[in-house]
Amino acid sequence: MTTLLLGPENRAAAWREVFAAANEPLITGSENVERPEDIRYLVCWKPDVSLDTFPNLEVVISTGAGVDHLIPMPDHLRLCRTLSQDIEEKVRDWVVMACLMLCRDMPIYLDQARRGLWNTLPVPSSRNRNIGIMGMGRIGRLAAVSLRELGFSMFGWSRSGTPEYGVEMYGADALPAFLEQSDVLVCLLPLTDSTRGILGQELFGQLPEGAMLVHAGRGSQLRMDDLRAALETGQISSAMIDVTDPEPLPEDHWAWTHPKLIVTPHAAASTDYRPGAEHALRVIRSHRVCAASLPGEIDLSRGY
Amino acid sequence: MTTLLLGPENRAAAWREVFAAANEPLITGSENVERPEDIRYLVCWKPDVSLDTFPNLEVVISTGAGVDHLIPMPDHLRLCRTLSQDIEEKVRDWVVMACLMLCRDMPIYLDQARRGLWNTLPVPSSRNRNIGIMGMGRIGRLAAVSLRELGFSMFGWSRSGTPEYGVEMYGADALPAFLEQSDVLVCLLPLTDSTRGILGQELFGQLPEGAMLVHAGRGSQLRMDDLRAALETGQISSAMIDVTDPEPLPEDHWAWTHPKLIVTPHAAASTDYRPGAEHALRVIRSHRVCAASLPGEIDLSRGY
Repeated sequence: MTTLLLGPENRAAAWREVFAAANEPLITGSENVERPEDIRYLVCWKPDVSLDTFPNLEVVISTGAGVDHLIPMPDHLRLCRTLSQDIEEKVRDWVVMACLMLCRDMPIYLDQARRGLWNTLPVPSSRNRNIGIMGMGRIGRLAAVSLRELGFSMFGWSRSGTPEYGVEMYGADALPAFLEQSDVLVCLLPLTDSTRGILGQELFGQLPEGAMLVHAGRGSQLRMDDLRAALETGQISSAMIDVTDPEPLPEDHWAWTHPKLIVTPHAAASTDYRPGAEHALRVIRSHRVCAASLPGEIDLSRGY
Repeated sequence: MTTLLLGPENRAAAWREVFAAANEPLITGSENVERPEDIRYLVCWKPDVSLDTFPNLEVVISTGAGVDHLIPMPDHLRLCRTLSQDIEEKVRDWVVMACLMLCRDMPIYLDQARRGLWNTLPVPSSRNRNIGIMGMGRIGRLAAVSLRELGFSMFGWSRSGTPEYGVEMYGADALPAFLEQSDVLVCLLPLTDSTRGILGQELFGQLPEGAMLVHAGRGSQLRMDDLRAALETGQISSAMIDVTDPEPLPEDHWAWTHPKLIVTPHAAASTDYRPGAEHALRVIRSHRVCAASLPGEIDLSRGY
């Protein structure tokens, strides 16, 4: 009934404290496993060891909010992502910042500043701007609340189309109707076979001319060359992205210095170690009492 | 009982519509005044004509939220600023954006991007950051609400120290106690004799080391050279300012390209013409019914 944690030593030190306080056995680092058959829970990002090593493994917990790097998963295993209010709020903050930066013309002002140019543009009111969020999970809903409070009109697109207070929701089959009114498009989708490459020329063409793009999903959802072309034609007027393809972005990549694009290096959130450890304890305890669904458990058939 | 509007022709066109619909006489442009004794109300930013020209003038309305450029005002006149939810929300949005940009290390990321450097910093939680707002008027209170909703701990400093829900308030004599816990200092003060130059070496030295500065008050409140020195020593780690001294900032000014400083060209808000005209109508009607206080009226003894 032991948990194995893989990953950096500074994380391991924090986890040992949390697990010791909870009287829960923890091994840190695959090299410290003496009896592989004891390992019931594995916590990792990209594991440095085959899952087959542990014959009694039952649950894998991703240390991040995403799990795409762990899929496909053997059928007999259950997979959870880390749910953390801390991560969710950090990404929410980045999304709010990015929407404001684009709506308030920061790419233009930053470019002007480089040239010492004092030129003030008309200031649009947030109340006249529609923001469409693709992916209305926990982070998408948080972002929608904050942006709505700032006066933006909010639209959401999700597989289920589940209603959300103050947000005009669109289901899986209503993507074109959702896109055509999104002055700002925010991508927070999980990476799956159906979202890979979704942010490309065809989708961009369905947005209002001069729309803005905020991307904090996964790098491989975005066709970077299509973004570049859309920025050149003006189909997309400006963009701010926290994830790229490839990642990290090479030093000489065009995206770093494009005047209509702002790139941050996958910095929307980082996991504080303690909340992650506490989440893992909740998963372990739920599993032990045979809960039907574990905290953050992934539906392996849909991949998120 | 006529109103005279000074200022650009595109504003004048919008005002003529609003005033015509309200059946209220309006003259646009001082060159169109045939009978100066008819002018009871003057709406302007910086008037191109002496106020003495109009012997029956009673009320001057600034077309902006500030009035410092119109003070001192002859004793027999009343002075109003333009109250506009639209302006207030725009400045609020800029302040929220600036606080997020500094807290989320955008000056560093923008500098790294120029060099093609993918280097991710630990992401601080907003919940561990104190934001102190100097000037808790209408915009300060709006900003406090939005930033509190994002999880920041909010502090306010104002002459009166009037309580505000969810904000720890400090009165005029408690400036040092307010400053020492402001990880981010936001200036939204009106420009008066006592706030001119207030943002300087002495005040910066009372902030926590490495504090951040957001300035959307008036340019002459900030001693630019003191800011530069504080950025160099690290007393202030980063800053974002929408007002400068002088304004506009010359093309070769150091502030444009300092890597720890982001400058926008007095772009936090611009007045939509229609709400400004509607505010002026409210002032005129209040004056006509002898209201004790007019909408946006300035206390000339304190200057705001």
